[in-house]
Amino acid sequence: MNTIYETIKEQATAMREQLRAVRRDLHTYAEAGWCEIRTSSLIAKRLTELGYQVLTGPDVCLAEARMGLPPEEQLEAEYQRALQQGAVQPYAERARGGFTGVIGILDCGEGPTIAMRFDIDALGVFEDKGMEHLPAYEGFCSVNDGVMHACGHDGHVSIGLGVAEILMNCREQLRGKVKLIFQPAEEGVRGAKSIVEHGHLDDVDYVIGNHMGDSAGGDYQIGLTYGSTLASTKMDIYFTGRAVHAGAIPEKGNNAMLSAATAVLNLQAIPRSSEGDTRINVGTLHAGSGRNVICDRAKMEVEVRGATTAVNQYMEDYARRIAQAAADMHGCGCEIKLMGATESLQSDPDMIRYCEKVCREKLGLRPTPPGQNAGASEDYAYMVNRVHSHGGKGLFFSTLAPCAGQFHTKEFDFQEDALCNGVMAFCALTYSLMCEEPV
Amino acid sequence: MNTIYETIKEQATAMREQLRAVRRDLHTYAEAGWCEIRTSSLIAKRLTELGYQVLTGPDVCLAEARMGLPPEEQLEAEYQRALQQGAVQPYAERARGGFTGVIGILDCGEGPTIAMRFDIDALGVFEDKGMEHLPAYEGFCSVNDGVMHACGHDGHVSIGLGVAEILMNCREQLRGKVKLIFQPAEEGVRGAKSIVEHGHLDDVDYVIGNHMGDSAGGDYQIGLTYGSTLASTKMDIYFTGRAVHAGAIPEKGNNAMLSAATAVLNLQAIPRSSEGDTRINVGTLHAGSGRNVICDRAKMEVEVRGATTAVNQYMEDYARRIAQAAADMHGCGCEIKLMGATESLQSDPDMIRYCEKVCREKLGLRPTPPGQNAGASEDYAYMVNRVHSHGGKGLFFSTLAPCAGQFHTKEFDFQEDALCNGVMAFCALTYSLMCEEPV
Amino acid sequence: MNTIYETIKEQATAMREQLRAVRRDLHTYAEAGWCEIRTSSLIAKRLTELGYQVLTGPDVCLAEARMGLPPEEQLEAEYQRALQQGAVQPYAERARGGFTGVIGILDCGEGPTIAMRFDIDALGVFEDKGMEHLPAYEGFCSVNDGVMHACGHDGHVSIGLGVAEILMNCREQLRGKVKLIFQPAEEGVRGAKSIVEHGHLDDVDYVIGNHMGDSAGGDYQIGLTYGSTLASTKMDIYFTGRAVHAGAIPEKGNNAMLSAATAVLNLQAIPRSSEGDTRINVGTLHAGSGRNVICDRAKMEVEVRGATTAVNQYMEDYARRIAQAAADMHGCGCEIKLMGATESLQSDPDMIRYCEKVCREKLGLRPTPPGQNAGASEDYAYMVNRVHSHGGKGLFFSTLAPCAGQFHTKEFDFQEDALCNGVMAFCALTYSLMCEEPV
Amino acid sequence: MNTIYETIKEQATAMREQLRAVRRDLHTYAEAGWCEIRTSSLIAKRLTELGYQVLTGPDVCLAEARMGLPPEEQLEAEYQRALQQGAVQPYAERARGGFTGVIGILDCGEGPTIAMRFDIDALGVFEDKGMEHLPAYEGFCSVNDGVMHACGHDGHVSIGLGVAEILMNCREQLRGKVKLIFQPAEEGVRGAKSIVEHGHLDDVDYVIGNHMGDSAGGDYQIGLTYGSTLASTKMDIYFTGRAVHAGAIPEKGNNAMLSAATAVLNLQAIPRSSEGDTRINVGTLHAGSGRNVICDRAKMEVEVRGATTAVNQYMEDYARRIAQAAADMHGCGCEIKLMGATESLQSDPDMIRYCEKVCREKLGLRPTPPGQNAGASEDYAYMVNRVHSHGGKGLFFSTLAPCAGQFHTKEFDFQEDALCNGVMAFCALTYSLMCEEPV
Repeated sequence: MNTIYETIKEQATAMREQLRAVRRDLHTYAEAGWCEIRTSSLIAKRLTELGYQVLTGPDVCLAEARMGLPPEEQLEAEYQRALQQGAVQPYAERARGGFTGVIGILDCGEGPTIAMRFDIDALGVFEDKGMEHLPAYEGFCSVNDGVMHACGHDGHVSIGLGVAEILMNCREQLRGKVKLIFQPAEEGVRGAKSIVEHGHLDDVDYVIGNHMGDSAGGDYQIGLTYGSTLASTKMDIYFTGRAVHAGAIPEKGNNAMLSAATAVLNLQAIPRSSEGDTRINVGTLHAGSGRNVICDRAKMEVEVRGATTAVNQYMEDYARRIAQAAADMHGCGCEIKLMGATESLQSDPDMIRYCEKVCREKLGLRPTPPGQNAGASEDYAYMVNRVHSHGGKGLFFSTLAPCAGQFHTKEFDFQEDALCNGVMAFCALTYSLMCEEPV
Repeated sequence: MNTIYETIKEQATAMREQLRAVRRDLHTYAEAGWCEIRTSSLIAKRLTELGYQVLTGPDVCLAEARMGLPPEEQLEAEYQRALQQGAVQPYAERARGGFTGVIGILDCGEGPTIAMRFDIDALGVFEDKGMEHLPAYEGFCSVNDGVMHACGHDGHVSIGLGVAEILMNCREQLRGKVKLIFQPAEEGVRGAKSIVEHGHLDDVDYVIGNHMGDSAGGDYQIGLTYGSTLASTKMDIYFTGRAVHAGAIPEKGNNAMLSAATAVLNLQAIPRSSEGDTRINVGTLHAGSGRNVICDRAKMEVEVRGATTAVNQYMEDYARRIAQAAADMHGCGCEIKLMGATESLQSDPDMIRYCEKVCREKLGLRPTPPGQNAGASEDYAYMVNRVHSHGGKGLFFSTLAPCAGQFHTKEFDFQEDALCNGVMAFCALTYSLMCEEPV
Repeated sequence: MNTIYETIKEQATAMREQLRAVRRDLHTYAEAGWCEIRTSSLIAKRLTELGYQVLTGPDVCLAEARMGLPPEEQLEAEYQRALQQGAVQPYAERARGGFTGVIGILDCGEGPTIAMRFDIDALGVFEDKGMEHLPAYEGFCSVNDGVMHACGHDGHVSIGLGVAEILMNCREQLRGKVKLIFQPAEEGVRGAKSIVEHGHLDDVDYVIGNHMGDSAGGDYQIGLTYGSTLASTKMDIYFTGRAVHAGAIPEKGNNAMLSAATAVLNLQAIPRSSEGDTRINVGTLHAGSGRNVICDRAKMEVEVRGATTAVNQYMEDYARRIAQAAADMHGCGCEIKLMGATESLQSDPDMIRYCEKVCREKLGLRPTPPGQNAGASEDYAYMVNRVHSHGGKGLFFSTLAPCAGQFHTKEFDFQEDALCNGVMAFCALTYSLMCEEPV
Repeated sequence: MNTIYETIKEQATAMREQLRAVRRDLHTYAEAGWCEIRTSSLIAKRLTELGYQVLTGPDVCLAEARMGLPPEEQLEAEYQRALQQGAVQPYAERARGGFTGVIGILDCGEGPTIAMRFDIDALGVFEDKGMEHLPAYEGFCSVNDGVMHACGHDGHVSIGLGVAEILMNCREQLRGKVKLIFQPAEEGVRGAKSIVEHGHLDDVDYVIGNHMGDSAGGDYQIGLTYGSTLASTKMDIYFTGRAVHAGAIPEKGNNAMLSAATAVLNLQAIPRSSEGDTRINVGTLHAGSGRNVICDRAKMEVEVRGATTAVNQYMEDYARRIAQAAADMHGCGCEIKLMGATESLQSDPDMIRYCEKVCREKLGLRPTPPGQNAGASEDYAYMVNRVHSHGGKGLFFSTLAPCAGQFHTKEFDFQEDALCNGVMAFCALTYSLMCEEPV
């Protein structure tokens, strides 16, 4: 008779085709953050069919804690688009207006509560249509121009639904509660906080998340790291001045261009910190209305990052002060809109070792030795930190696959055979934590 | 028997309705600089009908001296649009591709050569559709969205065609040569130089230009000024850097945002000059591709101005040096495109007095006492300066009318009754210079 | 029998040697603004001897309206120095502590009140000791190192004392009141306001000032100009931050260097004004304490200027806003000390013509045709403007002499024979205004 | 019979008073970098007396590789001062002109070559004269105003001479060659490179350096760290423009103030690096000559740092590019003087463990567990890196003592009893490496 781990492994391996199919369907109908109407409705429908208690709409994301939402009109247009692309009612209606998160709950009695996070949104990238790009060659390129799953979240959803199925199959052997969290708007670190603020992590003992990673020619299958992702804050800064004819009465204007340029240089010049790595970027700046008119408006997209949440806060506070002073300097107004934010993420070291052991010993997978990583940000950090705050433990691991292209570029793709490794890792960890030994 | 001046006056007054009709037709089909296909073709057709020798296409504007042309595709699209809006062949074909200038020549034997300049282009302004805006109320608003005769050039063309008709009627009394120059792309000071560089002003003894002006509640009809318009140079500055992920490897990028911001502040900080008034404006800046990407491209629209051509040259030279150094500073590239230029314009003082006398004594018009003006730029300056350079004389005057709204705004309009004053001033000056006394 | 004008001319001519001697004595003991203890005491002594009512100390300059005073210790050291160099008591004691102005009053009964202004201070320049520099060759170089009469104020005092003598001689013929104002601290435009604020110009009908000018090889003797001097404000701006080790904890500092650099660029970038010429200069900046320490203090010497008092105010207000915002931006403090100020000066046009006529017709001097001048500032403007404000008239003229070197340089010198021209111009104007005809 | 380690320990402990006396003498006559004439002469005299082969003058430091030398006049003045303060001939003469390094060599036949580095210079700090400052209370405050041993190098020299004595005593038991390097001008990282470039480290198998450290209330005696000091480059940047009157002809100047301000902001804005920590500081800026003169000269003291030599090089290269471009931008000249430089220092991990073991097991000292440190720079890095480059091994450790005040401040002092720990550590390591086991 099989052990439960062998069962998990068999079932996961057996759903390889299904995992690929789900991923390709999502890849075809890629949806950007807060606009994942179709994706959300399909997840909710599937979880419901499997027998999960399903939360949708405002029950998942706290409305006022969502960040960086598109304008109302765009949300509505996306809803209509989604309906035409197969979004399923009544779930689509629930997701309308930027409520695209879904949570599936499976209660198996006494035992720990284990949450798993799967992010579901795509990026603002125009997908490569060339025949050397496999999704183009095999016909599952994004049909939504300028929106592409260039970060592998299509794979994450596919894994999540695979996990949902297997855990439901094994529910008799489980002890405790499973929460499968399908999170919208991870890109731009906009969505996780609204789920955390709703309280969904408050009773969680273990939270597990994963991300696709590039195996880069090696033969590792699961990636582990001690290193942390960077805390980050995304802000849009608006300067408003007064437009007048630049030749006739320049002294009557308030030149928002000068405020913006002063802000750019000083933002970049925020002193380095001895308390950890920092980043600052003014990614875009759009200012002015005509060559011979004093510029009366400027918008810049800014992000700061920090090795720790505290260092990131230092950067954010300093950046806000600079923006306000740069506006004051030229008699301009300044408005700062928070577009996204995340804390620094650090897996619990014991969870890393636990995962390493389960993967190797129970599943025969090859995990990497835990190393460092750098530069990226992930709002899953909010979930881990909330769980850590009440004494629980969090883990973030990578499902490694051979990849084409860089993440976030139009050429990105990954080999789908690896998806079943992610599925079995989640399931095995859940079983082990619930039934074998705590971390 | 009437004097020639009385004849001119009568004929000009009699064509009041015709002047209004032509102006309103042009207002309806407003065309931006280098795109005045329909306008150009109607002018050429009319001059031909009247019996002028007519120059069109590359015979008017020296191709390589034209500045600030729209892209080829846009020029072609405008050609198609113009055909649908009544552009007349074969003149439209001649004007295709940014050759929209027209010159009408009338040779009346021995005598001085007198050139007159009428500019024909509209502005990039969305016209007011409200019923308090007379063109809207009376139904001759621009049908070309975002293009509007908000500077009165529709009136200039109407005056020019009126002048053409009367001078042809009086040709027996004239001695010398008449050149009626219909200039494209005055807005942004892009067109005049190409006509001058073609040589059309090289044999001219007197050149006369006019602009609509606001009578501002007073009862003056012709505006005269000793003051000069500002020389000006319009440049588009492009910075090109290298885009990389701002979190992962910021040191590998070349940040065009930093070059642009440094350039903005330093451009604005070019030292004032004791040799005359100066202006500088970075009107627009568009930079970057995404919040988390090091900015790899920035475009800014810049203009400098100077009370004299020399002072403007100081500003231009300094601005170019700043742009290049700002690019070098961050390892970026820099390209500067000349989008328009003009010199400083100063009417010949004798011509001002001559005009004042002819208007008052021969036509019974009320000219202003010559005063100062400031802040504006006009590429008609090239024509005046070329004529001055070989000993001729140039004049710039205003045809004053009650106006609604400010020039260059969507509410702008002028009272059309004044157009005949402009017509008779041009004609009377021509006759007087040719047949009565030199300046 | 001589006319009074002939008498004036003769007496002025006769005192040529005396004028030279006084000037050379003052040149030798040059004293900077607010430190003119010796100069002041000699003036007061001489006016007293001549029979004038003499005001000194706080009776001349309103204490709180003085600008740009040196520190107390320096004032005291200068007092001690002056005593050693021949300052005369009790006048030196009166001048102690920055009260170096002197006013001599001569009351001649009914008639207009005429004030004359003579500025008395030297500059912070190290005088040329080379033998081609006449003061060095003839042995009257400044003995006070780093202080030099490089702007001719030694000549102004000499003229003033000559005027005092002749007017006293002629007192029987005069009708009205004479006020001879010897003003301290004109350099840096620091002294005039305190005299005006004391009220000394409130009863004045005519005020006359003069400055040495370079005849530049021509044969004019008196310079006249319609043009105005620039209004100006001189400010010292201090930024204070927090010093920390730049390698160890840069984020703990407040970097005054960043505030200062941001201020420099933005000050220079204050938009030009259509209402008149402007100037801005950050002349000096001293910042920081060590290479590896975050800069905690910066001091910059700034001046703004404007063609009119209003335009200068625009510049000053904008500059103050920039400084404060630049400090705020980096969490620094900002203090702005007013070091000097003056308004724009414009002679009354009638006074110019009056002076031209008196000089030419009564004295046989050659005045220039009234022209334009530019770039300079003079706090005598406060006096003229105060007199204009209650209906009086003001005049500023130049006493022209062949000069060596540029004004304000170590090589500067002027030919002293011209001093008697200044003397006779002041005296003749006074007599004419009092006894012959008003302006 | 004693082991050699016991002998070392006894001898070191016995010289406690002597170590204190030497340290206090050096503290009293503190000498800044390249000016350590007296210090150098006393070291050379002592080493000679002990029997070492002694190198001095240009035989120690390669003349052209010395950085940040004071001007000739100052060096000469320091030489005269040193003679008055007891510098010993002929050694003082050898050290004259910035050749203050000394090397003592002891050849004990076959065996490894072991170099030890002791830095000898003081800092530009005004020592606290208050009675709570022990050197003041006990009367050994620096007599050289503005120069103070505020970094403990007086202790380093004292240790070095103690080591010299004991190793000479034990020379019969040693096998190999000892090089005691007394390095000038470590502050500002100016001196080490000239010794390395002379070749003195080319035959070295092991190099050992130490620095006083604060035991901070703990009971550790020897500090060990895996972490590296920062590589650093110190530069003085000079901008030269053209001075003109700021009111009269601002456009004729070249404004070095604008170049300097632009450089400050852009230097501070050099992008962060993902390859390691960086620092940048513009510590001081002195610019301009007068308020109303366009600034024609600016000098800034700049330093960059980097976690690795490569990252520091990135910073230095970028800083140089910025300085040049900022000068070009305003038509100014730019000169960059290298004032100091060092690489990143990382002890050999095996040496750390070796040292830990020797200290604990052979000497009974308490070493810290190896940790991280940050922010500081040390030009001893050049020595370690040169030794590593040919396969040798380098070590940097701290001699811990209770300290008063922060390093580099006027209140700094350390408890001298700890000096003997440093002495015995050097000696024991030398013996062990030579005679017991290699690393």
